[in-house]
Amino acid sequence: MPTYLPHPFDPLSSVEIELAIAIVKRAHGEVNFHVVSLQEPRKAQMTAWLADSQNVPRPDRVADVVVIAPGGKVYEGLVDLSGPKITKWVQVHGAQPIITIEELAAVEHACRVDPKVIEQCAISGISAEDMHKVYCDPWTIGYDERFGSNVRLQQALMYYRPDIDNCQYQYPLDFCPIWNAVEQKIVAIDVPKIRRPLRLNPPLEYHHLAIEKQGGYRNDLKPINITQPEGVSFKMTGTGREIEWQNWKFHIGFNYREGLVFNNITFNDKGNVRPIFYRMSLSEMVVPYGNPEHPHQRKHAFDLGEYGAGYLTNSLALGCDCKGSIHYLDAFMPTQAGGVRKVKNAICIHEEDDGILFKHTDFRDDSTIVTRARKLIIQQIFTAANYEYAVQWVFHQDGTIQPDIKLTGILNTYVMHEGEDTHGWGTEVSKGVNAHNHQHLFCLRINPNIDGPNNTVNMVDAMASDAPVGSPENFYGNAFYAKRTRLETTAQSMTDYNGATSRTWDMCNENVLNSQSGKPVSYKIVSREVPGLLPKEGSLVWKRAAFARHAVHVTKYADDQLWPAGDHVPQTSGAPSHGITEWIGDGTESVANTDIVLWHTFGITHFPAPEDFPVMPAEPITLLLRPRHFFTCNPVMDVPASYSITPSQVAAKGQGARDATDKVSELALGGCCKTKL
Amino acid sequence: MPTYLPHPFDPLSSVEIELAIAIVKRAHGEVNFHVVSLQEPRKAQMTAWLADSQNVPRPDRVADVVVIAPGGKVYEGLVDLSGPKITKWVQVHGAQPIITIEELAAVEHACRVDPKVIEQCAISGISAEDMHKVYCDPWTIGYDERFGSNVRLQQALMYYRPDIDNCQYQYPLDFCPIWNAVEQKIVAIDVPKIRRPLRLNPPLEYHHLAIEKQGGYRNDLKPINITQPEGVSFKMTGTGREIEWQNWKFHIGFNYREGLVFNNITFNDKGNVRPIFYRMSLSEMVVPYGNPEHPHQRKHAFDLGEYGAGYLTNSLALGCDCKGSIHYLDAFMPTQAGGVRKVKNAICIHEEDDGILFKHTDFRDDSTIVTRARKLIIQQIFTAANYEYAVQWVFHQDGTIQPDIKLTGILNTYVMHEGEDTHGWGTEVSKGVNAHNHQHLFCLRINPNIDGPNNTVNMVDAMASDAPVGSPENFYGNAFYAKRTRLETTAQSMTDYNGATSRTWDMCNENVLNSQSGKPVSYKIVSREVPGLLPKEGSLVWKRAAFARHAVHVTKYADDQLWPAGDHVPQTSGAPSHGITEWIGDGTESVANTDIVLWHTFGITHFPAPEDFPVMPAEPITLLLRPRHFFTCNPVMDVPASYSITPSQVAAKGQGARDATDKVSELALGGCCKTKL
Repeated sequence: MPTYLPHPFDPLSSVEIELAIAIVKRAHGEVNFHVVSLQEPRKAQMTAWLADSQNVPRPDRVADVVVIAPGGKVYEGLVDLSGPKITKWVQVHGAQPIITIEELAAVEHACRVDPKVIEQCAISGISAEDMHKVYCDPWTIGYDERFGSNVRLQQALMYYRPDIDNCQYQYPLDFCPIWNAVEQKIVAIDVPKIRRPLRLNPPLEYHHLAIEKQGGYRNDLKPINITQPEGVSFKMTGTGREIEWQNWKFHIGFNYREGLVFNNITFNDKGNVRPIFYRMSLSEMVVPYGNPEHPHQRKHAFDLGEYGAGYLTNSLALGCDCKGSIHYLDAFMPTQAGGVRKVKNAICIHEEDDGILFKHTDFRDDSTIVTRARKLIIQQIFTAANYEYAVQWVFHQDGTIQPDIKLTGILNTYVMHEGEDTHGWGTEVSKGVNAHNHQHLFCLRINPNIDGPNNTVNMVDAMASDAPVGSPENFYGNAFYAKRTRLETTAQSMTDYNGATSRTWDMCNENVLNSQSGKPVSYKIVSREVPGLLPKEGSLVWKRAAFARHAVHVTKYADDQLWPAGDHVPQTSGAPSHGITEWIGDGTESVANTDIVLWHTFGITHFPAPEDFPVMPAEPITLLLRPRHFFTCNPVMDVPASYSITPSQVAAKGQGARDATDKVSELALGGCCKTKL
Repeated sequence: MPTYLPHPFDPLSSVEIELAIAIVKRAHGEVNFHVVSLQEPRKAQMTAWLADSQNVPRPDRVADVVVIAPGGKVYEGLVDLSGPKITKWVQVHGAQPIITIEELAAVEHACRVDPKVIEQCAISGISAEDMHKVYCDPWTIGYDERFGSNVRLQQALMYYRPDIDNCQYQYPLDFCPIWNAVEQKIVAIDVPKIRRPLRLNPPLEYHHLAIEKQGGYRNDLKPINITQPEGVSFKMTGTGREIEWQNWKFHIGFNYREGLVFNNITFNDKGNVRPIFYRMSLSEMVVPYGNPEHPHQRKHAFDLGEYGAGYLTNSLALGCDCKGSIHYLDAFMPTQAGGVRKVKNAICIHEEDDGILFKHTDFRDDSTIVTRARKLIIQQIFTAANYEYAVQWVFHQDGTIQPDIKLTGILNTYVMHEGEDTHGWGTEVSKGVNAHNHQHLFCLRINPNIDGPNNTVNMVDAMASDAPVGSPENFYGNAFYAKRTRLETTAQSMTDYNGATSRTWDMCNENVLNSQSGKPVSYKIVSREVPGLLPKEGSLVWKRAAFARHAVHVTKYADDQLWPAGDHVPQTSGAPSHGITEWIGDGTESVANTDIVLWHTFGITHFPAPEDFPVMPAEPITLLLRPRHFFTCNPVMDVPASYSITPSQVAAKGQGARDATDKVSELALGGCCKTKL
């Protein structure tokens, strides 16, 4: 295969983005580009090509384009880059496309010079000549029934910095300008009934200048060096986006919205390349805040659908965002004006030692095996205004995939007046600073392909036997089992977490049975941070974030059903709710033994505390996708053991034992502080 | 302080153990020693000494001794080593002390030569001349109502090895001899109604010889080296068992039963040494199996109370059980005959890089801070017959403590006859091998000391507001809050996990309020693997393992209330139940604002799969103890940032920025496979 041709799953290259933009501009003039991204190949054609790339035509490269034309008209288009030609161009009514970073950047200056904002700042205690010290985090407005969906709006969460280097989140202001992004002006200001003037407490800062002023950094942390003198254990093949590591092989995609996307995940099981997932990504998220006071209900960011984990992604730095031997991939995205923006090092890839993979000692003779584990980590980090999300996709040697998210960055804050009570909707994390309760709910989208595309989801609950203690079937009362509920239809698939039964969900292929256990091959979702949506049924968030109503939804696979809160999320009312509710439909569609998509919503509820301020120590969320009945035995027995000695070798005084122990490790502290005999 | 004196929390030294044994032998003759271990200093005296070690007398060293005298009589004693003199010596009736490794070792040979066992082996298909290929894992009998508590018994779980190097767990036998440990003979054999002959399938092995025969180890895993060229960041002080690291200071103890014990855990908060926990350990565990068929109900090991995580602990190997710069501590324990057994490297201590500690980027100008985290890990690994438990206690810089357990080793197995159905009580993990469903339930014991000994536990639930959508109090329906339930009495303290409310428990000191939030200083238990006890109410396990009936119990502190399933666990009937039920009492005792002990039971339910066989890839269980309202702000801002640049420095083209990025990290893959422009 000539490597100058992109892999069909590859993100659009810089050249392809430029081509798509040029074609659109030629046909439709100057427009604002909100999306220029790969339309992923149609699955039927793609699977045919993957199966026989010599004879099946390579899927064409197609750009998915969303623009706003002068006057605010929204168009969706498709550009076939092989033509090249525009194959679709339709106006969309009542929808607002994803917000661009250029739109975000426009609001702050406008606020500073707007007379009504200046007036409100004066009420807060800020003089007109200090307006350059006023900052705003522009958010989409979420949904505000006073304005609806037809006018493109942002809300400006206001802050103050006495000095440019101050953390603004400790100086929130109490009013909220609303910005019309098409007319480029402030159209309203939400002013609370009770005013809360700016509280100029002494600054609390995390940057190095501030720490140095307070006596400097601690000096008792000694370096840890991590090196791979013989290189890394993974290789990038094809166009450089397919990775092979420890029997895994998959394609690493990236788009403006989900950020990292994994396609065609397979595992080489003793020479048999077995498909596991056709596609896996975080497809959406929502961050509802729990303060009912107007207009805080508008704070419920859909960071993927409204802003884009790709658009917001960080350029990562070697030895800083991760340590060791790192491989990076760049990302290319359109600018609103029709240029191309490159994010260098948008994705980092590296290995880490992962402790003990397995160990056993026979107590009779101390015959032992110890084998260490390795993991592969593919990471992106994105900044959503105040917060950062470090999203790691961890691949384990034993077939486990572990999405792992660290939350850090800064709390969204609001000002309190002297003596104000938070009423339990938030926490005074620092004097006068109210950090509202909130949730981070992520929607993991998986199109399973476990030994083939026809898969079924079972809900699994750990249950005690129904038979009472003393009965013949359960005389001693210890009987328990895994209760399996087959999710037959989209309606039945809408299931919630149950901590009391350690509920899991198995994605399985009923057509392929494990030769040992006789059970269908499967991957189990072991997810324990599943708080459920706290905004009530019928609430604004509940309507807009239908994917978060249940821990699991299952839908039948269809091309382009990627975004569970709808294609265009900003300013949706949720009435009707787009995305997943449409695909669930009347609930009767079969999702058993067919090509399915599983949507899993997990996350955390965050009740802030002073420890989280002014910058949050990373808070972890994780879950496991584990092979169960997928392999016929432990699949990692051929990972080189550090040490292995069998009973016969113990008897032979160690002869023949394997000692491949890491010789680089060393004793700490030399001879000091030995325990006494 | 002269360092030749042991710290009062230090485990008994070899010399002290010898002294205690000599004194007991002199007074009471030849006995079997089941326990010779530190009786921890009385808390009142110890806290006085800790507060003023110059003027308060140092607590005496006292050995807690349990012996079995000839004829099976059990005695409990205390030996004051400073006397030295025996200060307590009482006979205990109807109790069986912890099993010794010598008792475990005695059974196998006895089985091989017992005529009735030979007879049963013949029925299984094993000839008399192959009896040396018959093995047994001797377990305490648990409780069997036919024999009660007065006769000291073990049950022998039987296996076969065609070759000495075969993993016996793939060749289980179907009958179960019962061994009288005092009379040293087989007193009965449990034979199932349906016989299941030995199934001699081709072996499935994990040791290096077997892997080499099958083509050898994979060769594509490149080494990762971890080094600390400037040494480690922790130091061991005093007698070498107190550790100081990143503001933490605590004492590392170890005993025969719990293994690792942490005492007097404090955190230096900007010069103010603040107590957090007086004592923390795993105090008990139970592993109930879910197959109701007799005699499998007897499989519900209390690995700490019946065998001892100290007695079973592994000697750890450098670069094998952990990597990097490692400090080890040895352990000393009595032998049954009255000697001393040393376990070299029973405890390992090391640091690991822990990814991003915090990060924030300002989207306006890319001003950024990235700070990397470090963690301290104190580990032991113990082998309980087939299973291994790698118990890590992870200390984080931000004040979080993370007990982290990896389960590995081998499944307990039972033979199936051809065509047998598991009935859902187990899994055929390999042809003819039934691994029964089971749980691993651990009991974390914490004596909190959060800014002082008078603490209170609150149960915290994430709850939606009661006010309906559309009501003035909750118009948009988004209101939610943390509902706190103060656990006032021992009865109220018996609380279960609730996944639907993301339930946590706060240990707090109501007498000390956070200066910023106004809330009591606290440590929160964030524990998500809390399956609850599946054996039913009234079942044998439910009666014996009362600590596992609820996720949390709180009791008033009392010296010597350490073992929640009772002091002597083997062969307890649970009627009455010892330990925690006695301390809960009638439920009326106040546990609010007093010196309390919190008992938290967590763990997993394991439905085996072929992937777990013949040796289990490590399965993780973890939980977090997190400071909430304990610090007045993020306590790790003085951890040296890898990179920090403020907005003014961005404006000044980087001048003054801090760049302390790890320069050892490097790009992987050199120039190959670059993404194309």
